[in-house]
Amino acid sequence: MEHTSPIEVKNRNFAELLHSMAKTGFQGRRLGIAFEVWLEMLKEERITIFMGLAGAMVPAGMRKIISWMIRNRFIDVLVSTGANLFHDLHEALGFKHYLGSDAVNDEELYREGIDRIYDIFAHEKEFNKLDFLISEIFSESEGVFSSREIIERIAERIRKEAKEDSIVISAYEEGVPIFCPAIADSSIGIGASLAKKRCVVDTIKDVEELTEIVAKSEKTGVIYIGGGVPKNFIQQTEVVARLKGYEVDGHDYAIQLTTDSPYFGGLSGCTFEEGISWGKINEKSRKVQVFVDATIALPILAHGLIEAKRRNFPVFKFGEEVEVRFQKT
Amino acid sequence: MEHTSPIEVKNRNFAELLHSMAKTGFQGRRLGIAFEVWLEMLKEERITIFMGLAGAMVPAGMRKIISWMIRNRFIDVLVSTGANLFHDLHEALGFKHYLGSDAVNDEELYREGIDRIYDIFAHEKEFNKLDFLISEIFSESEGVFSSREIIERIAERIRKEAKEDSIVISAYEEGVPIFCPAIADSSIGIGASLAKKRCVVDTIKDVEELTEIVAKSEKTGVIYIGGGVPKNFIQQTEVVARLKGYEVDGHDYAIQLTTDSPYFGGLSGCTFEEGISWGKINEKSRKVQVFVDATIALPILAHGLIEAKRRNFPVFKFGEEVEVRFQKT
Amino acid sequence: MEHTSPIEVKNRNFAELLHSMAKTGFQGRRLGIAFEVWLEMLKEERITIFMGLAGAMVPAGMRKIISWMIRNRFIDVLVSTGANLFHDLHEALGFKHYLGSDAVNDEELYREGIDRIYDIFAHEKEFNKLDFLISEIFSESEGVFSSREIIERIAERIRKEAKEDSIVISAYEEGVPIFCPAIADSSIGIGASLAKKRCVVDTIKDVEELTEIVAKSEKTGVIYIGGGVPKNFIQQTEVVARLKGYEVDGHDYAIQLTTDSPYFGGLSGCTFEEGISWGKINEKSRKVQVFVDATIALPILAHGLIEAKRRNFPVFKFGEEVEVRFQKT
Amino acid sequence: MEHTSPIEVKNRNFAELLHSMAKTGFQGRRLGIAFEVWLEMLKEERITIFMGLAGAMVPAGMRKIISWMIRNRFIDVLVSTGANLFHDLHEALGFKHYLGSDAVNDEELYREGIDRIYDIFAHEKEFNKLDFLISEIFSESEGVFSSREIIERIAERIRKEAKEDSIVISAYEEGVPIFCPAIADSSIGIGASLAKKRCVVDTIKDVEELTEIVAKSEKTGVIYIGGGVPKNFIQQTEVVARLKGYEVDGHDYAIQLTTDSPYFGGLSGCTFEEGISWGKINEKSRKVQVFVDATIALPILAHGLIEAKRRNFPVFKFGEEVEVRFQKT
Repeated sequence: MEHTSPIEVKNRNFAELLHSMAKTGFQGRRLGIAFEVWLEMLKEERITIFMGLAGAMVPAGMRKIISWMIRNRFIDVLVSTGANLFHDLHEALGFKHYLGSDAVNDEELYREGIDRIYDIFAHEKEFNKLDFLISEIFSESEGVFSSREIIERIAERIRKEAKEDSIVISAYEEGVPIFCPAIADSSIGIGASLAKKRCVVDTIKDVEELTEIVAKSEKTGVIYIGGGVPKNFIQQTEVVARLKGYEVDGHDYAIQLTTDSPYFGGLSGCTFEEGISWGKINEKSRKVQVFVDATIALPILAHGLIEAKRRNFPVFKFGEEVEVRFQKT
Repeated sequence: MEHTSPIEVKNRNFAELLHSMAKTGFQGRRLGIAFEVWLEMLKEERITIFMGLAGAMVPAGMRKIISWMIRNRFIDVLVSTGANLFHDLHEALGFKHYLGSDAVNDEELYREGIDRIYDIFAHEKEFNKLDFLISEIFSESEGVFSSREIIERIAERIRKEAKEDSIVISAYEEGVPIFCPAIADSSIGIGASLAKKRCVVDTIKDVEELTEIVAKSEKTGVIYIGGGVPKNFIQQTEVVARLKGYEVDGHDYAIQLTTDSPYFGGLSGCTFEEGISWGKINEKSRKVQVFVDATIALPILAHGLIEAKRRNFPVFKFGEEVEVRFQKT
Repeated sequence: MEHTSPIEVKNRNFAELLHSMAKTGFQGRRLGIAFEVWLEMLKEERITIFMGLAGAMVPAGMRKIISWMIRNRFIDVLVSTGANLFHDLHEALGFKHYLGSDAVNDEELYREGIDRIYDIFAHEKEFNKLDFLISEIFSESEGVFSSREIIERIAERIRKEAKEDSIVISAYEEGVPIFCPAIADSSIGIGASLAKKRCVVDTIKDVEELTEIVAKSEKTGVIYIGGGVPKNFIQQTEVVARLKGYEVDGHDYAIQLTTDSPYFGGLSGCTFEEGISWGKINEKSRKVQVFVDATIALPILAHGLIEAKRRNFPVFKFGEEVEVRFQKT
Repeated sequence: MEHTSPIEVKNRNFAELLHSMAKTGFQGRRLGIAFEVWLEMLKEERITIFMGLAGAMVPAGMRKIISWMIRNRFIDVLVSTGANLFHDLHEALGFKHYLGSDAVNDEELYREGIDRIYDIFAHEKEFNKLDFLISEIFSESEGVFSSREIIERIAERIRKEAKEDSIVISAYEEGVPIFCPAIADSSIGIGASLAKKRCVVDTIKDVEELTEIVAKSEKTGVIYIGGGVPKNFIQQTEVVARLKGYEVDGHDYAIQLTTDSPYFGGLSGCTFEEGISWGKINEKSRKVQVFVDATIALPILAHGLIEAKRRNFPVFKFGEEVEVRFQKT
């Protein structure tokens, strides 16, 4: 048995501390292992890395971290809640989220037009501007789109007016597709529903596109920030691919940062071991679940990755079928 | 100040114990209050009661409880994850979920074709039969449907082959609409994606329909089993309604059974106070959030409601617009 | 494999519902199993049942439930935090805890002399009366006592003035010893520290006494309400007994109601499986951990036990050595 | 309102990142604020800083971090569970904790003599050596001691044989008193109970000593790693001091790293706001509670403090009364 190495406090960088944490216990150890699993993914020759993004990560200040990961191709495909995309566009347009408090009179906030997300505030009116802008984009689009396609349309439009780099914009520019399978359940859906006449989002098409990416990637890695729809949607691709006759064998690398527990039976908190029984996770995969608020873990992991380099990354071409090919970074 | 009344152990029914718990502390007290809030809802003359259903409640044995609530009209509209509906149809067809264990070798389960949901097992092959049946229903349907409409189609089909009463079937028969806004993110979405040619589910249409129901109900009550998309989807209707020019003022009654915490900033665990700032919850509402696994709380609450009676309940007619009228039970 | 039996809502008692819950999933199932494990314990011929009691259970209205369990000998030995005993004495003397709120201005409460325990209030002044009464008892006692002995002294004194039955009083009258190993860490310790001259509490003696009870009981069952010192203190007796040369083999039955998680590495939330590695829990034991607030689970379990009967129960005699013999109920 | 500043990923040290996190949301923000509160404490002229240490922090690799904090006088008084001290002595003697796993067969571990603490392993036999060494120390000591005094005796003895610096040793050498109010509830208590004849630990004396330190410190700061007895024991000193006639006004700075929730009513997870109602926390205090596993947060905070400097620190002299004076670092 290898013994633990109690952490010494000394001058060092984030990567060094994370490696050191991997030799301790409990969730600190798991965070260290999560870092090491991510590094291993990046060394693979032909891997597609999926990130599932749930929770109000953008209001909580994580926008630039996700953008940075996209720009560096530490992730290749993003599956997100609508809220994170909406809040990202909000900040892209120069609007802000504010340092608020959770110990506050919400009735007063309501009267002042301030929406609260735990300890973050936002102006309802500023949200509404974006609601109507999105409504416009849906009005001007005709036909049936996957959520990926409609988000690209939104990116094209917002880019022109953007004051800040953003998740949606960086993904658009870097060729990282964004899927939003529960798009109706967010302010993007709200915006869409305000349109008199509008295009239709066919989220089953998202299932099809995402599954093809999985099926055509030699290896796959998954990184879940929280659980929710994004986690399940990426997990289920393995099941779909198998039913469609593809030879897939579960994701090869898996990381989750979560505040949910396995013992309440939900998919958000379930272990990757459970995923093995379903064939969603490969039994030989490197996998780790860290019980921690992502607003703590994500900044640490990102700063640990500063000197990391990706070898090759996938390029996607969407048409009748999805093409996936890999190129050098 | 009213003092607590320590609970006495004596022969009594569930309703009596729940009333007694409301005079104690912590989450026991909150469960008692949840019961009392539900009773108050049922006494309203013109109220629509929405249930949001997340978590793997059906595999965990809650199917008949939800059906019973529908048959008794203790709820009027259901917003559910796709998984709960899929598992409900699975049981309706006579397939089973099994008493498993969470301390198990998942690689062996995989080889035996058994899918694990914490301590519940299911046969993958039986799931697949339903996958293909759903695929068929999607193949045979043409055009664009809201998730509510497609679930009705599924209900019509499954009813004929059903061996057990079910959530989907009882809702169909009682006129309780079911919405599934993240339908792609479930085995229903998987089934749909297997179809060569298929109808399109327009989940934005769900936003529109659900918002109209809210706008046209004099009062609204919400009961969230877990969080996830169902909770947010019902919550956001108030925002949509306001943007569409309806005069709405937040839900009037609100209950949540949850295992999420407010302090991680997610919508699943956020307090109803936070909802007040957004105008989703009325500042004068009766509201309570209980931190507890629903598989414990729901059976207790249901048995407490055995002698309860609803006064009037809403009847919905879906067309160009949604009509809502109330009738005596 | 046995399939789940979805719960039907129908007229029945608590015991019947709990048996039904044992055939479902997640924590509902575990609560059902906890009930069944408790019933099994009661059927044993020669078993000593230990309860560990942590958390502010008395302010939260659980006093009479614990007393009822003592009076019915559903438990034989109690290990408690000092706070629960202090609050129990407080209520025994006719003082009250009050239905408060957690959303409150604590600075105002402070100025009004109100102490808050989440959603329960108490008058600081009333607490102080008991502080000084306890100080008096410690002043009047000379020598060195185990916590069990000093609690008996307190019981003798409070009994005379009591207006309500209580945990401490019922335990005294029924011959159920109470141990309070962290007595300094509570208002009992506060009271003691106010005495000018006072007896000494030798909590190592508690280790010795409790270990002898374990060693001399043919079988042992443990029921943990929360974790903390009470859980660990009962768990560690198996280790002590072994080091002292007794042949012990871990507790035979084990139930825990807890809101702590295993994955943070603390003893409060650790699994009974972990306890097996230490020899604290027998590998053939019947054991179950339920993740739930005890203020919800305890009333339900107690009402389920209404018709249960204990066969034999242990009688303790404390002297140089502890004697344990069993008698018919 | 100040707006959030989304975190940029760039080369910087831990302190810089922590300051940046303080401008975001949720628990990441709270961790940043915890860092800033700690820095403020260190700038005070006359403050005593108490640390409460619960959870199996030493097996999880935190020993050197705590020692480093003691050596740098970032803390002045330590209140700990017995387990952390025992495990610290274990490592001081050159024994190890091992990198294990939580997904393991505990019956096999038992047969191999391996004790598991979540994902950490230890050899039972090595633990037993220390059990008997402690038994010896208790045997050789006569009379009545506070836990602080007996821990000093243990420190004196272990120092001679130590192969590694440790919490107990560094505290002894730096004049940082260690209190262990629930000493019976740990392997130190186990060791003590093995002695044929032994000294008595009077933990009420700990209440008295600790209260005097609080009463004689101009200001006080508290840092809780977890909850449990250490948190409550430090919190309650304010109540004791007031009852003894000292003019105290609640702790002036307060930090907690915790995985407990307020809404279950326990002291471990209760908010510092609740502490204000009791007068344990000053209403003008700087205070922050971070919901996170300390094995993640503590290494980050410690590395953030690398360049921090304490101004003055307290020196304690224990006799009839406790003397507290401050000196320059």
